[in-house]
Amino acid sequence: MLSKSQVSLLKSLQHKKERKQNGLFLVEGHKSVTEFINSDYRIEAIYHAASFEPKMLNLSRKINLYNISVTDIEKISSLKTPQEVIALVHIPQYPMLNNQQLKQKFSLVLDGVQDPGNMGTIIRTADWFGIADVICSEDTVDAYNPKVVQASMGSLARINIHYVDIENVLPQMGLPIYGAMLQGENIYSTQFGSEGLLVMGNEGNGVRPGVERLINKPVTIPRLGKAESLNVGIATALICAEIRRNKLGKQ
Amino acid sequence: MLSKSQVSLLKSLQHKKERKQNGLFLVEGHKSVTEFINSDYRIEAIYHAASFEPKMLNLSRKINLYNISVTDIEKISSLKTPQEVIALVHIPQYPMLNNQQLKQKFSLVLDGVQDPGNMGTIIRTADWFGIADVICSEDTVDAYNPKVVQASMGSLARINIHYVDIENVLPQMGLPIYGAMLQGENIYSTQFGSEGLLVMGNEGNGVRPGVERLINKPVTIPRLGKAESLNVGIATALICAEIRRNKLGKQ
Repeated sequence: MLSKSQVSLLKSLQHKKERKQNGLFLVEGHKSVTEFINSDYRIEAIYHAASFEPKMLNLSRKINLYNISVTDIEKISSLKTPQEVIALVHIPQYPMLNNQQLKQKFSLVLDGVQDPGNMGTIIRTADWFGIADVICSEDTVDAYNPKVVQASMGSLARINIHYVDIENVLPQMGLPIYGAMLQGENIYSTQFGSEGLLVMGNEGNGVRPGVERLINKPVTIPRLGKAESLNVGIATALICAEIRRNKLGKQ
Repeated sequence: MLSKSQVSLLKSLQHKKERKQNGLFLVEGHKSVTEFINSDYRIEAIYHAASFEPKMLNLSRKINLYNISVTDIEKISSLKTPQEVIALVHIPQYPMLNNQQLKQKFSLVLDGVQDPGNMGTIIRTADWFGIADVICSEDTVDAYNPKVVQASMGSLARINIHYVDIENVLPQMGLPIYGAMLQGENIYSTQFGSEGLLVMGNEGNGVRPGVERLINKPVTIPRLGKAESLNVGIATALICAEIRRNKLGKQ
């Protein structure tokens, strides 16, 4: 059984301030917890209901397991329908981004993406297309927000997330900077080459002016119908597919 | 000012049962309301705060306008941050689907899509790619659910939504039936042709067996990374882009 103060700490991790202060976040559900176990993330503890068989986690390393009541699970869960297993995970500290580590590959840059569902879907999509790094402006939604963790469906365990001052960092990378803009080259005729950054903007306002001026390869998704815009997760996926086009066609 | 019973009716439209019983749903926000005004939808009334200038709606037809209190707007809104204008709109009655109306074009088929955000995003994406019809199994989330309306960003006003017994209806259409499956032809080498149906399945369970056996052209999105699956909205968009590929390349 958890003490009142433990419940209170775990519950508080639904808020960014508390996550940051404690350097911890929660991962809920069998599938996602398994993905984090099989990653380099440090796991502080795993809490599970009596109905859950810990053998199902195939633990490959020593992690403290706690059998707790369903009432406690409901208290600490951020889900409407709580799952029977929850991991308490350390927020990773990534080393400073340097221009060697992003060479010869494509990375995503998110400029103020706000919706946790979009953020989680973008992480999942990056993982699908073999993109390892997602570089976020400091005002992008926190990747360890429970709704982001949930929507990423475990992919967060495999993707490196960097929060940086993107206006300062991007120019130092020495890479082509693509950006999804209203006016740009048709993505279906763009030669994306083998390395670069792809900047995606905020849901309502797009890319902010200070970042826009860093984009040297603006691209556009052509439209056939009448919708004014696409969801940012959808737009990211469509452009990632074109970046990976050569490889995808050969699968 | 709205009467208590009016507030109660409008508020009740957050529930599917009440929407069905009354044949009405709500559309919130200036942009979405404008898209419905400029569509064939029958609009029963528009409610707005005193701070909202009705001229901004550019009304092209006679619609009853009601200036209501912010308190009433907050009561009837389904949004955390209510907008200052809300339209009360009639749910359309579509004629029975027939095989002539779907000839020479592509339409989407949703088999049990559950998440309102996904559904709204799919409608918005269909609108972007010029797909006019979305055919839904009867257990697909209701398109007039406030979260769907919100996520569709006004595109719902332009897309025909049909709820049918898809297992019975699809075979009668006499069209190629594509479906997103784990085992299928690579979408990047598939020749989609000029007409067909594209079946997308439920978020967790995919396409149900009774519908799966109707799919004569299974297709797959190739993967480069490690995510186990893609979000259904993302998968729909990636396949729609390939269906429209020839046209998109020429934009």
